[in-house]
Amino acid sequence: MPEHTVTSRLQLSGLCFLLQTLTIILFAVFVRYSPESSAELCLQQLNCSRRKLDLGFQHPRFRDGHLQALLGFGLLVAFLGRYGPGSVATSILTMAFAVQWAILIQGFLHFFLNGKIQVGAQSMVSADFCTAAILISAGAVLGRVNPVQMLLLTLLGVTLFSLNEYILLSLMGVSDSGGSLTVHAFGAYFGLMVSRILHQSQMDKRKEQQDVGPLSDVFAVVGTIYLWIFWPGFSSATTAHDNAEPWAVLNTYFSLAASTLAAFVLSPVLYEESTPRMVQIQDAALASTAVMGMPGEMLVTPFGALVAGFLAGLISLLGFRFLTPVLRSRLKIQDTCGVHNVHGLPGILGTLLGTLLAALATADAYSGRLELVFPLVAQGSRTATDQALCQLCALPVTLLLAALGGGLGGAVLKLKGLRSPPDTRYPESKVLREVAEEGPDCGVSRKEPGTSTVV
Amino acid sequence: MPEHTVTSRLQLSGLCFLLQTLTIILFAVFVRYSPESSAELCLQQLNCSRRKLDLGFQHPRFRDGHLQALLGFGLLVAFLGRYGPGSVATSILTMAFAVQWAILIQGFLHFFLNGKIQVGAQSMVSADFCTAAILISAGAVLGRVNPVQMLLLTLLGVTLFSLNEYILLSLMGVSDSGGSLTVHAFGAYFGLMVSRILHQSQMDKRKEQQDVGPLSDVFAVVGTIYLWIFWPGFSSATTAHDNAEPWAVLNTYFSLAASTLAAFVLSPVLYEESTPRMVQIQDAALASTAVMGMPGEMLVTPFGALVAGFLAGLISLLGFRFLTPVLRSRLKIQDTCGVHNVHGLPGILGTLLGTLLAALATADAYSGRLELVFPLVAQGSRTATDQALCQLCALPVTLLLAALGGGLGGAVLKLKGLRSPPDTRYPESKVLREVAEEGPDCGVSRKEPGTSTVV
Amino acid sequence: MPEHTVTSRLQLSGLCFLLQTLTIILFAVFVRYSPESSAELCLQQLNCSRRKLDLGFQHPRFRDGHLQALLGFGLLVAFLGRYGPGSVATSILTMAFAVQWAILIQGFLHFFLNGKIQVGAQSMVSADFCTAAILISAGAVLGRVNPVQMLLLTLLGVTLFSLNEYILLSLMGVSDSGGSLTVHAFGAYFGLMVSRILHQSQMDKRKEQQDVGPLSDVFAVVGTIYLWIFWPGFSSATTAHDNAEPWAVLNTYFSLAASTLAAFVLSPVLYEESTPRMVQIQDAALASTAVMGMPGEMLVTPFGALVAGFLAGLISLLGFRFLTPVLRSRLKIQDTCGVHNVHGLPGILGTLLGTLLAALATADAYSGRLELVFPLVAQGSRTATDQALCQLCALPVTLLLAALGGGLGGAVLKLKGLRSPPDTRYPESKVLREVAEEGPDCGVSRKEPGTSTVV
Repeated sequence: MPEHTVTSRLQLSGLCFLLQTLTIILFAVFVRYSPESSAELCLQQLNCSRRKLDLGFQHPRFRDGHLQALLGFGLLVAFLGRYGPGSVATSILTMAFAVQWAILIQGFLHFFLNGKIQVGAQSMVSADFCTAAILISAGAVLGRVNPVQMLLLTLLGVTLFSLNEYILLSLMGVSDSGGSLTVHAFGAYFGLMVSRILHQSQMDKRKEQQDVGPLSDVFAVVGTIYLWIFWPGFSSATTAHDNAEPWAVLNTYFSLAASTLAAFVLSPVLYEESTPRMVQIQDAALASTAVMGMPGEMLVTPFGALVAGFLAGLISLLGFRFLTPVLRSRLKIQDTCGVHNVHGLPGILGTLLGTLLAALATADAYSGRLELVFPLVAQGSRTATDQALCQLCALPVTLLLAALGGGLGGAVLKLKGLRSPPDTRYPESKVLREVAEEGPDCGVSRKEPGTSTVV
Repeated sequence: MPEHTVTSRLQLSGLCFLLQTLTIILFAVFVRYSPESSAELCLQQLNCSRRKLDLGFQHPRFRDGHLQALLGFGLLVAFLGRYGPGSVATSILTMAFAVQWAILIQGFLHFFLNGKIQVGAQSMVSADFCTAAILISAGAVLGRVNPVQMLLLTLLGVTLFSLNEYILLSLMGVSDSGGSLTVHAFGAYFGLMVSRILHQSQMDKRKEQQDVGPLSDVFAVVGTIYLWIFWPGFSSATTAHDNAEPWAVLNTYFSLAASTLAAFVLSPVLYEESTPRMVQIQDAALASTAVMGMPGEMLVTPFGALVAGFLAGLISLLGFRFLTPVLRSRLKIQDTCGVHNVHGLPGILGTLLGTLLAALATADAYSGRLELVFPLVAQGSRTATDQALCQLCALPVTLLLAALGGGLGGAVLKLKGLRSPPDTRYPESKVLREVAEEGPDCGVSRKEPGTSTVV
Repeated sequence: MPEHTVTSRLQLSGLCFLLQTLTIILFAVFVRYSPESSAELCLQQLNCSRRKLDLGFQHPRFRDGHLQALLGFGLLVAFLGRYGPGSVATSILTMAFAVQWAILIQGFLHFFLNGKIQVGAQSMVSADFCTAAILISAGAVLGRVNPVQMLLLTLLGVTLFSLNEYILLSLMGVSDSGGSLTVHAFGAYFGLMVSRILHQSQMDKRKEQQDVGPLSDVFAVVGTIYLWIFWPGFSSATTAHDNAEPWAVLNTYFSLAASTLAAFVLSPVLYEESTPRMVQIQDAALASTAVMGMPGEMLVTPFGALVAGFLAGLISLLGFRFLTPVLRSRLKIQDTCGVHNVHGLPGILGTLLGTLLAALATADAYSGRLELVFPLVAQGSRTATDQALCQLCALPVTLLLAALGGGLGGAVLKLKGLRSPPDTRYPESKVLREVAEEGPDCGVSRKEPGTSTVV
């Protein structure tokens, strides 16, 4: 076995040991379970529960957070089977470390009380949101980074995500309970910037393979179904408002339903197919949930959700057809999982919609809920217009932070000694690669040139 | 690419756009989120919560509804992989549209208040039940109808389902919380009738292939497990009674357990196998949940559930062995997924059992629960015998409506210009068909002659 | 078809019918639904809810119990596809019967009130725990026992599990809410002892096959994700304490996260691989949940959970590398699924950790929770040291019972007329076996000699 692989193996093993020891020590020093006062604590920080958290109530949706963060993305990532088990394992490693790291960083920013981080169900939910963003970023570069690089990226990504979240939610008083901006847009553009920096010309030379196998289709079916089932709970996991929450849930469902029809409307026109591929339906569903992140709890009528979902569905398909090729050829940005179409653009659309709704927010339209959705407006310390302005300003802030962070991250990963490609020498990955010949693959399944693998 | 395919593609695209626009407009005009009074509203209409819905409590089981409607049936449908991704995508399209349409139709019947439809978690649960029925119907014809036909079928099916539900629950005061009759029996016979009308003789000519692949087995394992996990919550999703609900849940579990043993008892006798196929176990499980729909909340002793589940398990296996061939050869009814054995017969059995229990219902046996399960009897406005009579009369009403509706639906689908078969020309479906050679397949996996595909 | 197969088929069919009839009769005579007083009842018996169970609250976690018992283990077992559908079907049969039988046996021990067994959500949770233990045992022998043998093993195993649970929880006052000892350790060693007795020398002669297929990898991914999502709820399903529960949940999450990094630390060192196989990550996750069973609700600081999870992850990998071969060659114990490394050792580790924590338990460290976690200590009827002693003594008691029971069980299974191997003559299993050539396989996927199949 070649030398550099051995070193890279030990590199990984050592880094994991180092990081885990570090977190254990930091946890030992700083982290304590919060007495149930955590709810009171967090409400000044995050736009979370306004009342003492009933944990029996909290736990299920806290679990939804996990479901989505792990399952939905886990399946998304599983599509990349063609890059060998390494990439799936890598993303699980990413989750495992991101959760721990997020607890620490977010803890210092949000839950720090007299020298200790107060950990509770609420802080775990926030950590899940952060993990989701990191996994979105990973979706843009997976298959082109090795585990060691991914861990370093996680270190940086989690820190920047928490910083951005802190600026938006706590300083600017933006309300973005479902994370259109903080999770989807940030994650997508952070990952895309890293992908841009990591770009290596010879990659585009690789010939692509077109056929999609039954397995990928099965994955897409299961993935779509899970989105339908669990995302609504996820996108409303931080809104523990007594009656705001169900609206966010229902809005997300309606948006999902509309996005599916959008896929059926566009796919036959864009591609010579009578019915869309399952992956296209899944992308539409993902996009429709990303767009519902911010406006989810603001929409007071179901038809708004239908319209937004329908648009998001159209955007994701149009993006894959026309934008992704441009990104790759002109901007030299490879987007393995098309996160730009599925998370980036819809996230921005969601933010704009949220801004609009904030501007239109009136006491009588929201009645009791205004105090829950836009507390500052309800308290009169801010007009609806100011709120809308804040929501809008949050967009450039996030994009800037994501771009700078991504640039920095990419630069770090290009350092010598880290550049070894993901190892692909052991039996499974060989077996997998054979399957991959007609195997699952998000990037390629949409007939785009040049998605390539290090294999 | 042949002309008729192009037109059929644009036909689908256009129809989806039309329908989505229509729903959006109707939603804009009529649908509003309900203030939390929805619970009070619905209790006169549906046999749902008697107390103000605690939404933190409502949401999880409302999610169960979705889980079952989408996941369980999604997996069931996924078995049909051999008909190409088209049929899986089609059934997801069906869900997406059925949910929206059901919200509207049921809204006009159940939740219409001073000119607006009051939408809440409760109405979404009802919409899920309706979607489930439509997917059962789809199970009978899938692989022989194209997406356009399926959408039209959904339009009709949802309307008739809601009508039937309204007659049974609101007018006749039948209690059928788990939908033995309204969901399973109606869905099955509606689909079967459509299948009968669509019957084309040359279909039976096709030679069948017998072998079942590992993938189908995996599906069956996952499907069975999901049934065990989520159906109890589903079949009790509308019974928000403080203490009636858990009985429905537990009854369903016991019925599931017994049905599994039934499969092991019968399979070695009917087929030369030492252990039943997973699909048989799954069918038995499905049947046992269908039978528990109506009596689920009426049974006051667990052993009743064991007996019912055991019988349902036996019925489903016997049905596949002896009835399905008769249906196909004599009655010219093809039943792609065997919905007659898995939903039709068990649904009827459940209704009869429910009738029996209603007749035996006495105040002291139910104590407090009588008021919840049989409100009219508890209020003394009706004797137990009358209630039993109503339950029984509901059966012919449902069957009649299902048969007439199915006949009408089938006639519509035979109109010229709609008759183009599901397209099977694009890469995936070819790949899938290769897999299908040893691929999943509900209809055939039980050694029946003549299940055929349009491929 | 050979004679002995026919008899074995009818044997199974008959036994299932007999057992189901028996349970139905016993249920009819003894089992009734409990009025909601069940909570009060059980609290003297099991260390379960101290307050009247709110069923809306109970149901979701009760479902978690099912999720884990059925889904997690269902997937684990699904790995054994290479032994033909028979073994998957067998384990589902085991579940179906174990649940019913556990309700009866545990009912007589825990929920017996004036001549009737009071069944409620709580007793179903206990039955799930019991089923989980039986499935762990099955993991040690699957592929080498036929369904009939498995049913008899279940009969014995459930009885002994309940007996052991009764001794530990009710008589000795041990607190083991997550079942490190009662579920994991008991299940593992019971199964291993049976496996030892069933050992047949010629088995080791079989040549093994090394390659692991993509399907197994997919299973491992899904399995790992489910562990992350649902086990926390499972391991805390019996702790309905107002604020103890979330700690158990969070501890389990932290332990899971740490175990994943442990897998990445060790795997590159033990095997020439840059990233661990998914099965290894899954084993580490399983081990980390097993270790959290007992101390889960006792740990008052998150970092303890990180350390325990990290150790458990290391143990499971080390066990597969060094211990399993020794077990097989020296002790003649075949461990099909490596339950010794994944459930046995971590279970013991968890018990020791629990003992330590019990010894350190002080009123001010636990504040209000002491009364919930260690009621006897809180009531002053026992010192922390005595409690620790009890926890420790529970270990040998469990191991002894498991060993004796396993010995007895193995002896029974060797009786003539039961010894026919699992049938492997029907189409599926042939198809499956072809897949199996690069198919899923827990035992072998870690490069150990001599895991063999009866095929």
